[in-house]
Amino acid sequence: MSQSIAAHPDRLLPADPGTRSIARSLLERVQDLPIISPHGHVDAAVIEQNTPFPDPAALLVSPDHYVTRLIHANGVPMDQLLTGAASAPESREIWRQFVQAWPLFEGTASGYWLRTQFNDVFKLGADLSEMPSDASYDAIAAKLVEPDFRPRQLFKDFNIEVLATTDDPLDNLASHKALSEDPSFNGRVLPTFRPDAYLNVAHPQWSSNVDRLIETAGDGAAGYAGYIAALENRRRYFVEHGAVSADHGVRTPATLKLDAGDAEALFEKARAGKATAADRDAFEAHMMYQMARMSVADGLVMTIHPGSYRNHHGPTFESFGADTGHDIPFAVNYTEAIRPLLQDFGTAKDFHLVLFTLDETVFSRELAPLAGFYPSVYIGAPWWFLDAPDAMLRFRSAVTETAGFSRSSGFIDDTRAFCSIPARHDASRRIEASFLARLVAEHRVTEDRAHELILDVVDSSPRRVFKL
Amino acid sequence: MSQSIAAHPDRLLPADPGTRSIARSLLERVQDLPIISPHGHVDAAVIEQNTPFPDPAALLVSPDHYVTRLIHANGVPMDQLLTGAASAPESREIWRQFVQAWPLFEGTASGYWLRTQFNDVFKLGADLSEMPSDASYDAIAAKLVEPDFRPRQLFKDFNIEVLATTDDPLDNLASHKALSEDPSFNGRVLPTFRPDAYLNVAHPQWSSNVDRLIETAGDGAAGYAGYIAALENRRRYFVEHGAVSADHGVRTPATLKLDAGDAEALFEKARAGKATAADRDAFEAHMMYQMARMSVADGLVMTIHPGSYRNHHGPTFESFGADTGHDIPFAVNYTEAIRPLLQDFGTAKDFHLVLFTLDETVFSRELAPLAGFYPSVYIGAPWWFLDAPDAMLRFRSAVTETAGFSRSSGFIDDTRAFCSIPARHDASRRIEASFLARLVAEHRVTEDRAHELILDVVDSSPRRVFKL
Amino acid sequence: MSQSIAAHPDRLLPADPGTRSIARSLLERVQDLPIISPHGHVDAAVIEQNTPFPDPAALLVSPDHYVTRLIHANGVPMDQLLTGAASAPESREIWRQFVQAWPLFEGTASGYWLRTQFNDVFKLGADLSEMPSDASYDAIAAKLVEPDFRPRQLFKDFNIEVLATTDDPLDNLASHKALSEDPSFNGRVLPTFRPDAYLNVAHPQWSSNVDRLIETAGDGAAGYAGYIAALENRRRYFVEHGAVSADHGVRTPATLKLDAGDAEALFEKARAGKATAADRDAFEAHMMYQMARMSVADGLVMTIHPGSYRNHHGPTFESFGADTGHDIPFAVNYTEAIRPLLQDFGTAKDFHLVLFTLDETVFSRELAPLAGFYPSVYIGAPWWFLDAPDAMLRFRSAVTETAGFSRSSGFIDDTRAFCSIPARHDASRRIEASFLARLVAEHRVTEDRAHELILDVVDSSPRRVFKL
Repeated sequence: MSQSIAAHPDRLLPADPGTRSIARSLLERVQDLPIISPHGHVDAAVIEQNTPFPDPAALLVSPDHYVTRLIHANGVPMDQLLTGAASAPESREIWRQFVQAWPLFEGTASGYWLRTQFNDVFKLGADLSEMPSDASYDAIAAKLVEPDFRPRQLFKDFNIEVLATTDDPLDNLASHKALSEDPSFNGRVLPTFRPDAYLNVAHPQWSSNVDRLIETAGDGAAGYAGYIAALENRRRYFVEHGAVSADHGVRTPATLKLDAGDAEALFEKARAGKATAADRDAFEAHMMYQMARMSVADGLVMTIHPGSYRNHHGPTFESFGADTGHDIPFAVNYTEAIRPLLQDFGTAKDFHLVLFTLDETVFSRELAPLAGFYPSVYIGAPWWFLDAPDAMLRFRSAVTETAGFSRSSGFIDDTRAFCSIPARHDASRRIEASFLARLVAEHRVTEDRAHELILDVVDSSPRRVFKL
Repeated sequence: MSQSIAAHPDRLLPADPGTRSIARSLLERVQDLPIISPHGHVDAAVIEQNTPFPDPAALLVSPDHYVTRLIHANGVPMDQLLTGAASAPESREIWRQFVQAWPLFEGTASGYWLRTQFNDVFKLGADLSEMPSDASYDAIAAKLVEPDFRPRQLFKDFNIEVLATTDDPLDNLASHKALSEDPSFNGRVLPTFRPDAYLNVAHPQWSSNVDRLIETAGDGAAGYAGYIAALENRRRYFVEHGAVSADHGVRTPATLKLDAGDAEALFEKARAGKATAADRDAFEAHMMYQMARMSVADGLVMTIHPGSYRNHHGPTFESFGADTGHDIPFAVNYTEAIRPLLQDFGTAKDFHLVLFTLDETVFSRELAPLAGFYPSVYIGAPWWFLDAPDAMLRFRSAVTETAGFSRSSGFIDDTRAFCSIPARHDASRRIEASFLARLVAEHRVTEDRAHELILDVVDSSPRRVFKL
Repeated sequence: MSQSIAAHPDRLLPADPGTRSIARSLLERVQDLPIISPHGHVDAAVIEQNTPFPDPAALLVSPDHYVTRLIHANGVPMDQLLTGAASAPESREIWRQFVQAWPLFEGTASGYWLRTQFNDVFKLGADLSEMPSDASYDAIAAKLVEPDFRPRQLFKDFNIEVLATTDDPLDNLASHKALSEDPSFNGRVLPTFRPDAYLNVAHPQWSSNVDRLIETAGDGAAGYAGYIAALENRRRYFVEHGAVSADHGVRTPATLKLDAGDAEALFEKARAGKATAADRDAFEAHMMYQMARMSVADGLVMTIHPGSYRNHHGPTFESFGADTGHDIPFAVNYTEAIRPLLQDFGTAKDFHLVLFTLDETVFSRELAPLAGFYPSVYIGAPWWFLDAPDAMLRFRSAVTETAGFSRSSGFIDDTRAFCSIPARHDASRRIEASFLARLVAEHRVTEDRAHELILDVVDSSPRRVFKL
């Protein structure tokens, strides 16, 4: 039984011995810094209530669409993988499917994170493929019932300082409030305002969401005025509960400034169920403009995550719902799309706008040039399919020569998988060290300066960009 | 006279000594495996009849548009390069043009393959630029008349196990049949169903092709019904003669599901010569949907090769025909285009759909995510302008972190140039070894596992994906 | 006070010791060759009149939008950075802002060029961040008043052989004439014909420019005929004054062949102020076709620089004018756009067409394939945001395997910053050496051949492509 490569101190570092040695020293500088996680999908209630984690499959397989998708691609029907599915097998059986599929994950980012968890968090002591499926299941299950494996202890063990969640605008944020008032809990768990289902007319619940929104927070006003007031009010509520950012999972980065009359007319048309596809697009683009206007006013950092064709496979969506592994990226255009917003708010004082992309081509072509001029614009870290070692190196290579190191957001783990957080941040730090080590080896940056830069990139950037 | 770099055992392997040493050991694992070539353009009759190869220029220059294009770009008119052209000079003179242009090929994929052939197949013993043009011509010409230089002996010497050809739907496949029944021939030469000229209304022979198709194989039915039946029948005929795949050289990857009435109406409009450009696009997109439906039924692997603007330079096309070096790629979009097909067949049992691209940007953005979810979808190996060392490394880097190693097609040589087949597969194996060696050196994959992965990628993948 | 990394002999060379040693030897081959700069924005009058350079800020900060943009992104208002702005502070204060922002430039191309200038040209002896702002200001200011720091002496010290400027079609080219007739000046300073403001109907001065053009050079003809004649005449005037190329800063690479009647009708519509956006696009595309026709006739090399959204931030443009750091690239399509032009002139004798791009994706997908077939087409060197070390390496990797080394333009510094010219060419030569060294280390090119190739790429290519 060999030692897992997840334990190798040089993992992910460049092969050239001279460069590796520089990378090691840079990594050392940041390896033990606390984790700042300004965007993710962990449920605050789980931490507040210190809910024990469920079994291995329900923790590590079923909810992680990075994982289920690749097993599904290998021919296992989705209902054999989701603990919630009607015909779902027992967790131990789902785990068996996963262990069988484990070799498929070689070379993938998910494989790296999982292997690191097995080694660092669950102390498996061997690679998954070297143990019977039941043995790894039992070993992990045994850990999960230990008191040290509750969320709050792991939060501390993982050295998390800040963890942002993603929340519905009408969420009462009770868990966030409880955590912030709990003297026994030292971390910061911050809500994030995510109003997609209230802004996107095409969302199936848009109209009922708007009803509830206006009723709950519209200050008694009706129609478009009440809608805008309610959004402003709920944002303020989030700010009061510690939120630092508002996130927008739009289809495209289109923005549009409509005058109040046109916006109201579109709103009413949409409410009457008569909006065309063009109307819906225009309204959503206008609402991105409005969200920027509100961010300038209330200080919430605005983050945009466009370019994913959600629920690409209709039959899977119908049977198993959203976030089941078939959101597929497509080409985006930021330069023209974001211009209306930037015309008015691009140089607004203290406005922070973080632009993410799943289309790598816009990194060097559009995002680095935009962030290299507009004080408001920051380049979002490589996201989703791109938060992987090679992709992160490509990102740094694509943006740095134009925008330097100061104009990017810092790493975003964007995950639902709580136990994967340290592995993800660790991978990111190793890649930052690798990239900088190459610049040092090529005499493009001094080693002293590289030590400052890695500190800036890993620690100061997320604090600065997300106003933490 | 120095030894050719084509003979260097470390050619194409990474420069870092530690990584190179791992790459060497991985390469050793697969270097002598038989060649599986599931997509290419060699003529089966040449092998069946064991036709001697013509002279050096007619073998290595004129028919290879990778080669003629770069000489043409350097200012040599096309009619000085094509043995078939009206004003063509003697072969020895074409060869002289080629030798003079040989330095232009430094750093190119074609240069690599040619140099490897000169060294390994023709045993020139020196670089082309170190010999008089007549000397290399004579040396190769002398080899070509040797009995060992007939196609069947080379097929064996090259260690080819499977070679797929590309064939017209109405081809009688007599050569394939003869080869399969010949006890003295041990290889497998398989036909591939390529119906472009029968599906693409814009093709100049579409209407006459459809006439012949319906007449030959329409089971007596006329119109659209006869057309569909005939396609099904011819596919069956190909299956019966060993075909494992159907290939589609479409302009875009658009797919569309029309109901039978609409499809028939479009078909009749096209037959009457009244189809608009939009009609033609819709019909071709619908026929891609139909091809998928038929593949689900008859088991032929479906491969799509879109995104080339064919015959970009009108005057050259008019004088010298197609495949003369001016097919130019353009940007493609798979995510939206392929969705109608995947809605209905993406999870169909035993359906294999291999998506190729000349637009590298879709590798990480679209193809890896699609193949990482849909059991039917495989990422086509880098093709045409992209089957070159650096481009193949970029490909692996772009897709592996999302889709792992199991979701790609394995190497496709796609060539008319029979003698280049070993060089192309050798280059591919060296690049796979190089990529995996880096992952090992960076402690991302164990060396043991890398040995299994290279075997899978080089040998098992094409067998599995192409149902061999 | 440490030695600047700008002085390290191995700067920008690859880290692997074996590859670096090859790169060193390749670099040595070309390091001292004269500078050929066939496209840039230095003012010929400055050289002719041997105008002393102004103070450090007015020389190195304010006019360089690569530099001001990143300081602006960091929150310094533009009017604090531009010496010409109404509320501009003293130069020493602008310099202070720059020195404070200097760490932002780590890892950027501008940072590399500036650091190299500080070391090589201004002999600062330490990094900017290690000296008080006033000390570096004074040290540079002291150099600037030395007689050896006049443009003509630097032209000689920089070893510039050819420097092309960019000029208005109606410029009388007096400075160019004076320089060419001055026996005490040995360099070549060549004008470049840049007619954007006369071809682009959307340009605010288009109509008045056309008035002046026809009046000055229309041979007495009016309307479209006078317009075409005047352009031909002015091109001839440029040729007579040493011009070798005509440059086109178009929005997209669209080209279109209109018959004379349609062109004239569009021209008259535009003159009457009644052209729609589509009309304007069509007219500009047609004029690109006309420019190619004229290039075939008069021999001027045609260069196209498309794909920048100029003056993206309206308020900054209104206050500070063009070229203030917010030109943002977007995706371009060459394959279809350039086809009409290439249909008629792609194989025209002695026609040279250099295609530049800010969208890296077209390098491998479109430009290498186009330049690998059409004798007229050359791939423009990485430009603007892309003339940086990593970006230049990506460029070579993207195009070489398809088009080899003979089909690219050679390095273009494209700069207004005279003192940065040696640093830019030095960086380019180091990257060419690095790329070739890797090919040698991987046994893809022999070391002997690499020595010839680097000479070709650095010296022969620009001479050949720009007919120097």
